[in-house]
Amino acid sequence: MDEGNDVISGTVIAEELDLEAIQVRKDLAVTGIVGKPRVGYPTSDLISAIEKFLNWDSACRAVIVGAGNLGSALMGYNELKNHGMNLVAAFDASPSRIGPQKNGPTIYPMSDIKSIVNKEKARLAILTVPPQVAQEVSDQLVDAGIRRIWNFTNVRLRVPEEVLVLREDLSSGYAVLTVLRGITD
Amino acid sequence: MDEGNDVISGTVIAEELDLEAIQVRKDLAVTGIVGKPRVGYPTSDLISAIEKFLNWDSACRAVIVGAGNLGSALMGYNELKNHGMNLVAAFDASPSRIGPQKNGPTIYPMSDIKSIVNKEKARLAILTVPPQVAQEVSDQLVDAGIRRIWNFTNVRLRVPEEVLVLREDLSSGYAVLTVLRGITD
Repeated sequence: MDEGNDVISGTVIAEELDLEAIQVRKDLAVTGIVGKPRVGYPTSDLISAIEKFLNWDSACRAVIVGAGNLGSALMGYNELKNHGMNLVAAFDASPSRIGPQKNGPTIYPMSDIKSIVNKEKARLAILTVPPQVAQEVSDQLVDAGIRRIWNFTNVRLRVPEEVLVLREDLSSGYAVLTVLRGITD
Repeated sequence: MDEGNDVISGTVIAEELDLEAIQVRKDLAVTGIVGKPRVGYPTSDLISAIEKFLNWDSACRAVIVGAGNLGSALMGYNELKNHGMNLVAAFDASPSRIGPQKNGPTIYPMSDIKSIVNKEKARLAILTVPPQVAQEVSDQLVDAGIRRIWNFTNVRLRVPEEVLVLREDLSSGYAVLTVLRGITD
């Protein structure tokens, strides 16, 4: 849409993303959008359909636990805001970080997790604490009613079956780049 | 090893990672390690073999382009240092950020990319610039001899065939968490 295309075809999307056109059409059909044969999808309708399918059209109330440099970076990461993420609070173990922030949510002490998560009706927690305390903080979040955890630590969390943990493992990406070193250098 | 296990079996690793034991053994065999039947792998030998396979036992000289909050967070991310990443320089378009840093590499202006990449023999570039300039900066990096780019922007970069780009797409992780909202909440 930024490039001025009012209509986009499954074939063009497939080429841009190095996928098969048939797979692109099948995947997009899941969102409910209907393309016109030999024309494609109206671009703005397609964007709306995808955003609706991903629930990006409504706010997702989230908290961030661990306000170190990775946590702070994510607080300022506008792309997530654009996708509906609404950071309602942050937590940190360091007393010097506690308090309101100019460009971000108020930072509370870890002991306030349960009360603030409930008061703010937060549904998603981003975990950016040091690995040594990751499991303990995860237990606190689950106890507070959190059922979706975005885990940026390198710890495999043990959670009840109903809790969804997505681990964002930057080391895996780095491994892809280093294992191929001999081939590309 | 941190938990005091001198030996670990493929079966235990498979259980921990929710994988099939046969797949774990096959994958680990690629590193050259040989396990003992009914005993497993000596833990420290296994770690060394994996690190060697991933080239994490030797330094990977890297630069970071874009010293905003995501770039700064990655500069302080110790796990990558532990895996051999050696950040030799950073670059930013903002004159106020240029100069030596207390806890990180010196930040240079974008116009110095080619000379510093060559002088410092950097082999990997981490791209954390705003999306509008991502392609232009990528071209500069390729021109400077970089063949591996870790792309944290939401832009699909166009690069020559011999350049490896790994896109770290935080929005994909977020999508997994939001699309399932109805199921978990």
